[in-house]
Amino acid sequence: MKSMRLLTNCTVAAGVGGIIGWFARKNSELDNHEKHIDSFPLSKHLTKPGLPIFATVSAAVPITNNEDKDMGSKLSTNTSRISQIMKHGFPGLDNVRSFDDFVLSYDRRNRVAHWVFEHLTKERLSYNDKVDRSKCEFTADQSIHPFFRSENTDYKRSGYDRGHLAAAGNHKMEQTHMQQTFMLSNMAPQVGAGFNRDSWNRLEKYVRDLTKVYKDVYVCTGPLYLPKVEADGKKYVRYEVIGSNHVAVPTHFYKIVVGETADSKYEMQAFVMPNAVIGNDVPLQNFMVPPESVERAAGLLFFDKLSRSKLNKINGKSIKG
Amino acid sequence: MKSMRLLTNCTVAAGVGGIIGWFARKNSELDNHEKHIDSFPLSKHLTKPGLPIFATVSAAVPITNNEDKDMGSKLSTNTSRISQIMKHGFPGLDNVRSFDDFVLSYDRRNRVAHWVFEHLTKERLSYNDKVDRSKCEFTADQSIHPFFRSENTDYKRSGYDRGHLAAAGNHKMEQTHMQQTFMLSNMAPQVGAGFNRDSWNRLEKYVRDLTKVYKDVYVCTGPLYLPKVEADGKKYVRYEVIGSNHVAVPTHFYKIVVGETADSKYEMQAFVMPNAVIGNDVPLQNFMVPPESVERAAGLLFFDKLSRSKLNKINGKSIKG
Repeated sequence: MKSMRLLTNCTVAAGVGGIIGWFARKNSELDNHEKHIDSFPLSKHLTKPGLPIFATVSAAVPITNNEDKDMGSKLSTNTSRISQIMKHGFPGLDNVRSFDDFVLSYDRRNRVAHWVFEHLTKERLSYNDKVDRSKCEFTADQSIHPFFRSENTDYKRSGYDRGHLAAAGNHKMEQTHMQQTFMLSNMAPQVGAGFNRDSWNRLEKYVRDLTKVYKDVYVCTGPLYLPKVEADGKKYVRYEVIGSNHVAVPTHFYKIVVGETADSKYEMQAFVMPNAVIGNDVPLQNFMVPPESVERAAGLLFFDKLSRSKLNKINGKSIKG
Repeated sequence: MKSMRLLTNCTVAAGVGGIIGWFARKNSELDNHEKHIDSFPLSKHLTKPGLPIFATVSAAVPITNNEDKDMGSKLSTNTSRISQIMKHGFPGLDNVRSFDDFVLSYDRRNRVAHWVFEHLTKERLSYNDKVDRSKCEFTADQSIHPFFRSENTDYKRSGYDRGHLAAAGNHKMEQTHMQQTFMLSNMAPQVGAGFNRDSWNRLEKYVRDLTKVYKDVYVCTGPLYLPKVEADGKKYVRYEVIGSNHVAVPTHFYKIVVGETADSKYEMQAFVMPNAVIGNDVPLQNFMVPPESVERAAGLLFFDKLSRSKLNKINGKSIKG
């Protein structure tokens, strides 16, 4: 019976060289697997002889708050919400996890997400007095295997803020949505004053304001670990790791934004900011970069279901159609 | 019709929070996608409304040499060979690619594999005069998106060897098998004299010799980027990147080996070696480490379908059963 349910829930999509089936699963089913989240007891009737079995990836699990009792309806809301957020393609498929209002891919080596995907509209961002940021708490993500999980203690006395990748202010529909942005899997060590609390926050607000211009705004946010030329003339990647779990401190952060106009025109903007003090008077436009440069550095392809040639503008400049 | 074929080829396996379907696809089908290997035109009849579509991962594509005409039979051989190699679980599921005699996961950010998996037996390693190493050529892996692909030019004048992860000497059944180990996706920048050509080679030979002790030997090989305490008392990960594609030079390499005895007993050994000159007189045992330490550092779980409590020995020491 179980196998039937699984098969029914499986969306099959043909990738280049791969098919990925997708399955929306309740959080409660994860509980027994905390120790080895990526392994599972394999039901024999689900396998075919001669084909390898994939034992891994916590792929796109909608995570629902424990207080949420109405799982059935919630789940169906979630799956369509996730399709909406991820409409233009996944940047990569490494340890993808979906929350109620954002989706992320977790980098188990660096203990920071590879990318976080959000979908913003003016309506979704409107003032909601039900939601209280002061009630949110930074929480370790129990769905990540303990070997790879970042903890609050890692950040303590590190000198870095727990910086949101999916911004709290983007998820004001429900208290649960905002609380989920406080999961440590959505955090990266960020310089506090001058960055997280200032220029990075300016960029987050700028992206929210794009919902006044575009009907739909899609934003992908993540860390970069960029090389620098050192004294010997060679290039090195160098970054600090904090706490006993060695949480990586990214050298830079990116945001790739796609705005869709009411008449279905697409415009893209790409930003890279150093994880450092930035003067509040430095214009955000100074941090615009070609999207390809972020793709190369991050090892990801952004909005790959949306052909670049279909974009009207990149970084404010018209693309010859 | 195509959708039927795809669905038929899909193995569905229930992971914690995810189902991954697996599809063996011919290399020739990749040709048109060189520019955007991870994107694909989605057949509408393959999707269900309300479920997200995974647009990515070149998951476990058996790569067959172009000279190989008999694709049908080859493909079925490959899939069972891949199940054999991956019998005890995938360490991770990021950009998995399968060759005829080994399977790897490619790290698109660092342009070096995350891990390479091999299965060795005495019979498979026996002398074969059909196979000539001198005919093998280092070849860029065209199945990797050009943004993330390492090239021979990256290694040129870098001072590093193109070091095999799946060792050439482990794949002597067919010329094709050995040639595939010369794909640059199976290479990492390694210190030449004193490491690649010496102590690392000693370790590779040691692993081959384990086939005299065990009926089956499974070996997973990969790079590490380990942090070091610097002068300021903080920990930093620091590694060189070479060439215009910024191929990462790992600080260390690991090998996790599982030997299965004729009476189905399992023993595990784990080694970590610095990517540096190592004296030929240093015993290999000096490089043995707890497997968990490699898992934490690499962000991977090795042999996760094989419970650690079922192992008879780890690093030569008996485990209390």
